[in-house]
Amino acid sequence: MTIDPSRLAPMANAIRALSMDAVQAANSGHPGMPMGMADVATVLWDQFLKFDPSAPDWADRDRFVLSAGHGSMLIYSLLHLSGYERPTIDDIRNFRQLGSPCAGHPENFELAGVECTTGPLGQGLAMAVGMAIAERHLNATYGDELVDHNTWVIAGDGCLMEGINHEAIGLAGHLGLGRLNVLWDDNRITIDGATSLSTCEDIPARYRASGWHTVECDGHDFADIARALGEAAADPRPTLVACHTIIGKGAPHKQGTSATHGSPLGADEVAAARAELGWTAAPFEIPENIAQDWRSTGKRGTDLHRRWEERRASHSRGSEFAAQMAGDLPSLKQFDAYLADLAAAPPTVASRKASEMALGPLTEAVPAMIGGSADLTGSNNTKTKATGPLTSGDYAGRYLYYGIREFGMAAAMNGMALHGGIVPYGGTFLVFSDYCRNAIRLSALQRARVVYVMTHDSIGLGEDGPTHQPVEHLASLRAMPNLLVMRPADAIETAECWQLALQRADGPTLLALSRQNLPAIRIDVSENHCARGGYRISAASAPRRVVILATGSELALARDVASALEEKGIGADLVSMPCTELFDAQDADYREDLLPSDALVVSIEAGATFGWHKYVGRDGLAIGLDRYGASAPAEVLFPHFGFSVDSIVPEILSKLNT
Amino acid sequence: MTIDPSRLAPMANAIRALSMDAVQAANSGHPGMPMGMADVATVLWDQFLKFDPSAPDWADRDRFVLSAGHGSMLIYSLLHLSGYERPTIDDIRNFRQLGSPCAGHPENFELAGVECTTGPLGQGLAMAVGMAIAERHLNATYGDELVDHNTWVIAGDGCLMEGINHEAIGLAGHLGLGRLNVLWDDNRITIDGATSLSTCEDIPARYRASGWHTVECDGHDFADIARALGEAAADPRPTLVACHTIIGKGAPHKQGTSATHGSPLGADEVAAARAELGWTAAPFEIPENIAQDWRSTGKRGTDLHRRWEERRASHSRGSEFAAQMAGDLPSLKQFDAYLADLAAAPPTVASRKASEMALGPLTEAVPAMIGGSADLTGSNNTKTKATGPLTSGDYAGRYLYYGIREFGMAAAMNGMALHGGIVPYGGTFLVFSDYCRNAIRLSALQRARVVYVMTHDSIGLGEDGPTHQPVEHLASLRAMPNLLVMRPADAIETAECWQLALQRADGPTLLALSRQNLPAIRIDVSENHCARGGYRISAASAPRRVVILATGSELALARDVASALEEKGIGADLVSMPCTELFDAQDADYREDLLPSDALVVSIEAGATFGWHKYVGRDGLAIGLDRYGASAPAEVLFPHFGFSVDSIVPEILSKLNT
Repeated sequence: MTIDPSRLAPMANAIRALSMDAVQAANSGHPGMPMGMADVATVLWDQFLKFDPSAPDWADRDRFVLSAGHGSMLIYSLLHLSGYERPTIDDIRNFRQLGSPCAGHPENFELAGVECTTGPLGQGLAMAVGMAIAERHLNATYGDELVDHNTWVIAGDGCLMEGINHEAIGLAGHLGLGRLNVLWDDNRITIDGATSLSTCEDIPARYRASGWHTVECDGHDFADIARALGEAAADPRPTLVACHTIIGKGAPHKQGTSATHGSPLGADEVAAARAELGWTAAPFEIPENIAQDWRSTGKRGTDLHRRWEERRASHSRGSEFAAQMAGDLPSLKQFDAYLADLAAAPPTVASRKASEMALGPLTEAVPAMIGGSADLTGSNNTKTKATGPLTSGDYAGRYLYYGIREFGMAAAMNGMALHGGIVPYGGTFLVFSDYCRNAIRLSALQRARVVYVMTHDSIGLGEDGPTHQPVEHLASLRAMPNLLVMRPADAIETAECWQLALQRADGPTLLALSRQNLPAIRIDVSENHCARGGYRISAASAPRRVVILATGSELALARDVASALEEKGIGADLVSMPCTELFDAQDADYREDLLPSDALVVSIEAGATFGWHKYVGRDGLAIGLDRYGASAPAEVLFPHFGFSVDSIVPEILSKLNT
Repeated sequence: MTIDPSRLAPMANAIRALSMDAVQAANSGHPGMPMGMADVATVLWDQFLKFDPSAPDWADRDRFVLSAGHGSMLIYSLLHLSGYERPTIDDIRNFRQLGSPCAGHPENFELAGVECTTGPLGQGLAMAVGMAIAERHLNATYGDELVDHNTWVIAGDGCLMEGINHEAIGLAGHLGLGRLNVLWDDNRITIDGATSLSTCEDIPARYRASGWHTVECDGHDFADIARALGEAAADPRPTLVACHTIIGKGAPHKQGTSATHGSPLGADEVAAARAELGWTAAPFEIPENIAQDWRSTGKRGTDLHRRWEERRASHSRGSEFAAQMAGDLPSLKQFDAYLADLAAAPPTVASRKASEMALGPLTEAVPAMIGGSADLTGSNNTKTKATGPLTSGDYAGRYLYYGIREFGMAAAMNGMALHGGIVPYGGTFLVFSDYCRNAIRLSALQRARVVYVMTHDSIGLGEDGPTHQPVEHLASLRAMPNLLVMRPADAIETAECWQLALQRADGPTLLALSRQNLPAIRIDVSENHCARGGYRISAASAPRRVVILATGSELALARDVASALEEKGIGADLVSMPCTELFDAQDADYREDLLPSDALVVSIEAGATFGWHKYVGRDGLAIGLDRYGASAPAEVLFPHFGFSVDSIVPEILSKLNT
């Protein structure tokens, strides 16, 4: 390893120059972090990171995660300087402008080389834990020849103060993820001022308490950085490298203060910084010798990639590996057989149990699936025969005991999905979607195939009471763009929803499943009806005046309500609506046919009515629960809160007569 | 201190008997934790906890928080045995049944003596941090004679694994909350099995890294427990007491296993446990000598309470203290003057700035208000002249630098509000309501007066891009029962919303505030129009065909749209809707008058349209953003996403013509 400060210092200054100039041009952004971590990042890129700028999606590349995503100009600079096709210098000139891939925070869907979307603090690190799990699992499955890479993270004080970081490092320490190294930008500054305003924590001691190795370095001494990163790479434990840095390093009057964190330096200070750094090139220009030194950093990786590609081509499982990394699903024939069996003898089971039943053939057929639960394995029904425990002693396992770490679990799943080669699913109670909500949002924003198995999806949970009974959760999750919320009504719908979730390669799906048993309603399996989001279960016999719309556990009740109306000569269609988002995507004719304007539309769902008026209109009837639940057996709670034929039919009749 | 095991052991066994019998009768619940922690809780109650069963709301009582809320039978047993009026033995017989205050998890609104609602893991501990802050602040304000108590927490492995616990202990360690002691039920068992399935953490080492004192004890040795709790009480730092326990202690065949965690023991094991414990009394019966020993535990506190009440009665600030603890608001005359000034010269300011302006006179007038921000003080505009920093060196301060700990902040605010004497408010970006969502839910469920100052409330945030731009958040929060979501449109509405938030003693309010400047629209301050949730800003001049409905930053756009329609001879009312929940609470006439069925209703809000069809109906027009935003200046983004007169007017015309 050659550490030549006279070569590295100008390279680091190129990052500083691009960062302060781009922020200045945008009149918005965060120069402090890229300038502070420029030296560390330069050593990482030049000496340690395995990457091929000409093949950003090379499966065996190291993963680099900028968890402190506000310092986005750091990664844009690194990608541009080291020769990635994008961002171009014009992209950087247009930093934070509409149409530029150089968004305010790094977005995986904008730029190859950005492994995940960061900005919500702590989650980059937590996703990196997932990437490191994926790496070890695929290594255990396919061997060193195909999978043998590291995961590097740059994190700030904010990432380390967020609760999710506790969950993430606990998981990483427990699983012994030695390929994971976190470079902590230890600059003692947060937005509000000195870190001493809000924390006294001995961060390395905390990491050691979770089974991590820790080292430190002077973040502005290239040799010391290289030593520390070398120790990090060599140690069999995950490593935290405390990089002592000066935020905004190079800006003579503002460095070391929170003034550099989130605002442009200003023209005067930029000029002063150029003088301080000896940087004479015009804004957005990189002197050719420095540009060449930067482009040379990719050479090591390009060579390694070529040799790796040769190994893969001749490897007996090389194609299989490539297909798994591409996210291809194997044949689901076994699953079709399972569906046929269901249709032959539709069972009365809880949909969480139906999910377990569906997962049996699915996890057997799809080796990419890795399951888990946040300490509710027996309640979420997420474990199957095919998924043995994934532990520090056996990374080939396919089931993660995530512990009581919902947010860490969700973020790790995002990381696994984005790493590639893994289709993660994980469970908790639906009410605790609150605990991991922003990670679900990041699944949706990042277009990651993650399946959330959220059980105990209503007051049907019963005795555990209002803290554990979701009320507003279905509504609040349906409001989230690009997340499919599915609430199947019986075993066949549950199987169909699982199939749709797996087939959806570009986004997450959340399955809301019952604790309590549900009768079988669907019989026909000729077609996946759930794919349309909503569909008619039965048409009115008497002239249609009402359409009853329901999801999940309330479909059976809706069926009884429809029957009661029919008995009174009031025609009532019954519509199952397992996924409103998929229904909204149907054409207008289909939607109008299902929910005709001339009928009274009634929705029934044991949750907030919020959102249902889109289907029932101002004149319809949205039956739900717009208050918190109570602690009692489920069979007591449903009628208590009005979920009974006796309560609902009169409401409908009264509505019809007004 | 007299530790007499021959007296304490039967007392502890009374807890065990009640717990296993109640769970058995309910056929649902968690016997393992109460049985495991019975010995520790008995020592705490008998020797340390300051409480008066005849006055559960005594201001200077110690606060006891059962963070591991699933072990609810522990606290129900303790309250009943030590002589609180409720729960009665019949309440306990009806554990987990509709109407019993002995809900599945402890609920503060069901039982005096339950300081907060627990069950969502980690949050009890985090609320206790808030209670301990409140105690130190009120102590600094009113002195030892009136305020001098401890906060005791029982927490399980789940509480300590959740991310929020990292945030909470970091805050507590930093603030040096020596009156806070956490008794960790260190039983090495979680639901999925041994803790070794999911963690290798050295928990005490982590606590020490955050500035805590740690001790340990044999959780089944009364003298050792007493020694450890004594050391905890004496140490000036917050203390973690690792109580080594056996889960389900006393159930001979199941103790020490996760089988005792969350299921009834079964009749055979209950019988075996009675034999093991030498407990011969019938279910729900407590032998009189044991009952007497239990009732004697309250004597110490009853005496202390009497002496305290004498001190308070003769204290120069005794009445003031009582009023503050009761949550009474002082006169807001200064605030009325501020409102009049606004009306005289309505400013063009961001609503976050308007919030800061309103907070000036409010924090000056209301000493109970304690502000703060999760490291976004300058962005959330939460700090005022009256609120100096609350630090370990000066607890009299009224501003908390919460650090990058949104969840910890929200839970601490719940704890402060529930302690009494404090009206907490705290800020972060609206998008990061995701990070503290379940604590917001607990504010609402617990009916706690907490004000959330959530700024940067739409794509108006601009360049930071989609990770930082809320889209679904307004909808998802409106779906939450008992939370008021307010999105004021200008400085006067912001002031009115602040007034409503403070006056709301029985629940939380969330203010969604803009980053960008907003023109003044309201002038009239004769009445708080926001109190009705929605109100007409201007009536149509031409015959009314359209009602335009908007919130916050879109009200000005809506005004321009209405003007453009009027110019075309299409009458359009303009309605401001700062709070849909308050509007829903108005009578039908008011609502129909504002949103008449014969007009086309159009809503405009820069967020998900989800939920707006309740007002616009199936035939109306909900204009919003049903996708993630983008990184660009706000003034580019609004028209880009269709928020412009040029985009909206044609949509309305087309709708009118169909």
